[in-house]
Amino acid sequence: MDSAFSLYLEVREMPAQLSFTKMHGLGNSYIYVNGFEQALSGKRLPELARNVSDPNTGIGADGLIVMAPSETAEVKMRIFNKDGSEAKNCGNALRCVAKYVYEKGMVKNTTFHIETLSGLVRVNVHVVNGTVDEVTVDMGTPKLKSSDLPMTGGTTEKDLVSVPIEVDGDTALMTGVSMGNPHGVFFVDDIEEAPVKSYGPILADHHRLFPEGLNVEFVQVVNSHELQFRVWERGSGITRACGTGACAAVVAAVLNNYVEQGKEITVHLLGGDMKIFWSNEGSVYMRGPAVTICEGLYLMGT
Amino acid sequence: MDSAFSLYLEVREMPAQLSFTKMHGLGNSYIYVNGFEQALSGKRLPELARNVSDPNTGIGADGLIVMAPSETAEVKMRIFNKDGSEAKNCGNALRCVAKYVYEKGMVKNTTFHIETLSGLVRVNVHVVNGTVDEVTVDMGTPKLKSSDLPMTGGTTEKDLVSVPIEVDGDTALMTGVSMGNPHGVFFVDDIEEAPVKSYGPILADHHRLFPEGLNVEFVQVVNSHELQFRVWERGSGITRACGTGACAAVVAAVLNNYVEQGKEITVHLLGGDMKIFWSNEGSVYMRGPAVTICEGLYLMGT
Repeated sequence: MDSAFSLYLEVREMPAQLSFTKMHGLGNSYIYVNGFEQALSGKRLPELARNVSDPNTGIGADGLIVMAPSETAEVKMRIFNKDGSEAKNCGNALRCVAKYVYEKGMVKNTTFHIETLSGLVRVNVHVVNGTVDEVTVDMGTPKLKSSDLPMTGGTTEKDLVSVPIEVDGDTALMTGVSMGNPHGVFFVDDIEEAPVKSYGPILADHHRLFPEGLNVEFVQVVNSHELQFRVWERGSGITRACGTGACAAVVAAVLNNYVEQGKEITVHLLGGDMKIFWSNEGSVYMRGPAVTICEGLYLMGT
Repeated sequence: MDSAFSLYLEVREMPAQLSFTKMHGLGNSYIYVNGFEQALSGKRLPELARNVSDPNTGIGADGLIVMAPSETAEVKMRIFNKDGSEAKNCGNALRCVAKYVYEKGMVKNTTFHIETLSGLVRVNVHVVNGTVDEVTVDMGTPKLKSSDLPMTGGTTEKDLVSVPIEVDGDTALMTGVSMGNPHGVFFVDDIEEAPVKSYGPILADHHRLFPEGLNVEFVQVVNSHELQFRVWERGSGITRACGTGACAAVVAAVLNNYVEQGKEITVHLLGGDMKIFWSNEGSVYMRGPAVTICEGLYLMGT
């Protein structure tokens, strides 16, 4: 945890009522709390995350996002999962934070930075009639070496493109991509028949080649600008949307010559569509929706 | 559907933003909407219920409660489940509606009536420092004949007290109680060992003696004023709280001479405690908590 940010939060008391906004990006929903305007006790944030996320006795969400002042960017975000644990980064939450701070007038430019536990992230908001309907996030440069994943036994720079992997009795061709977190991408003819539930848990948790596990993606190439996509996320299982996974899918599709680098590719996820652009300069840009569900006061059990 | 109420709703247009309150009774949560103050289109209520209940793209709840003017009571409530279907009544929601209308100053007396699709219900709010912390609901008189349940083959008035029933290879003693809906109560020595998952679905859905199914309750008698309670609800499975089930449990405990009629019995449910009082005059009174989680504006996808 960043010590200045931590100190900023620790010295403040938690109020009896908390202003919140519930937002979602492709069905990945969080309770967003503005730490610029109201006091938040850092020590109590894990407990608050568990409480607000409970669908029965709380508001109900995948977790809690706290926005607060940053020394290096326009805003810093912290992500607490519904179990109270802290996450480093989340593409869906980045889009929602960008929409929030722009629409509240907390930033004036349409391009700005968000500080996360995994570093600074550049975002660009797309404004229609004063409302942000989509956000583009600079997801950084993919890493393509076996040591980046990591995968044991790999040696050369290109050894992660369509390498044969034994899994669940099959030998399947996998393309490995690191977007900060590790992804294994499999191309299939029919996305509905993809072995998400059989390959997913094996590669995510206990395959001898991947000591830290993988996020596992299945991709059906629809045409030169569209991919169908399903994901098994390490630690979560099947989810409706995975931003880094969609980026990895497009990178893998380029490396396998299904689509071209420098063109925008639409990825169809269970939760909706994202547009991914792998620039010729190296960065992968993810463009997707951010939606405000409701705004209100959380009464903290009173 | 009541035609006057229906007409009242149908002629109004849905607004672009909707004021809501999320409340829960023992973890059974709904989105409460005030139809006195804002326009609601009756035709769109099932769709609205599905949208607000979705945990990923909506607020997240077990359904939607609409409060509106009544010709026969202080307030009328309609209950829409998360699938958009309409329910006749719900004890947890009655307590929350009572808290809401009292705290908002919509009623002045602490005892008043709520109109539901299954008739008028009398409620009494317990006020501490201006806040309603518990509500007592008059749940009516239990019906104890086999034709009330219904159970096929039964004949006498007392034939539902500890009758041997064959289920899942056992012969178990069941006490049948109708609280408007049918309940089958089994007494067990250890609530943690109760066969909720084996007896529940059989008796709820496809037992030859119960053509309309049953809600299935397991009760451990702790002492003369406390019961441990677990329930399998017809149509829902295991739930954290079932108001009519808690009432049926106490009625069955009286009929089997474990506790006395005319004394308040505390029932420990998974979601918390309820106090049940079977008066000597016949009515069963249920007393339990009602909690406001949050208040806000639902933005209806804007």
